[in-house]
Amino acid sequence: MKISKIEHLGIAVQSIDAVLPYFENVLGLKCYKTEVVEDQKVKTAFLKVGEVKLELLEPTCAESTVQKFLDNGGRGIHHVAFCVEDGVAEALAECDGQGIRLIDKAPRKGADGLQIAFLHPKSTVGILTELCEDPNK
Amino acid sequence: MKISKIEHLGIAVQSIDAVLPYFENVLGLKCYKTEVVEDQKVKTAFLKVGEVKLELLEPTCAESTVQKFLDNGGRGIHHVAFCVEDGVAEALAECDGQGIRLIDKAPRKGADGLQIAFLHPKSTVGILTELCEDPNK
Repeated sequence: MKISKIEHLGIAVQSIDAVLPYFENVLGLKCYKTEVVEDQKVKTAFLKVGEVKLELLEPTCAESTVQKFLDNGGRGIHHVAFCVEDGVAEALAECDGQGIRLIDKAPRKGADGLQIAFLHPKSTVGILTELCEDPNK
Repeated sequence: MKISKIEHLGIAVQSIDAVLPYFENVLGLKCYKTEVVEDQKVKTAFLKVGEVKLELLEPTCAESTVQKFLDNGGRGIHHVAFCVEDGVAEALAECDGQGIRLIDKAPRKGADGLQIAFLHPKSTVGILTELCEDPNK
């Protein structure tokens, strides 16, 4: 697999409105977009730090996996997303061949117009890991 | 505060040797350095992804805060470190003035020759947050 950079860090929060002052006023970052991702039952807010996005994830209902993460005491970083250079489908096939447990067997549509797939944290040192490609690049 | 980029992600692991094959053979990254940081009771291994370092943290003794993190069920991302443009001392003063709880009241020496200080996760959306500056830049 060829990774060019960290695409984003997914950060689980109960309320984007409640935490945005920390990111904007203390860290001095700027939220440039919000988006509801129906599929993942989250509202997202994006900020940029260098080449990496911070993606704040607020659950939109109790069934959201992000809500379950928070309910189980999870805090802060929810997942790490990498940009893969040769595409998500090829990276998934490669991971599968190396015995890595896949959450998504095929790429699907994620936030911000990306094609994405998740690897299972049991196979990735406990870090929920997302692979991304921008189909417009 | 002016943050230029994410300096590194600190990743807690019980054994660097055990997880390095995942980072090198699956993700295709390369470990370019290891270093023991006596002060923090960890052995570290560095890999680079775009402009961001991954810093694998292996406790060197039971009293290491990283060992305690692992013992308490912590997995994966242990902390996020930001490069601050105007220096760590100034950023700390600013945080203090905004009511952010500080772990370090003054900059101290961290891995990789950096000046560092930690903010308390109670004040930083549950993310243990490190501020860094490279005194040689």
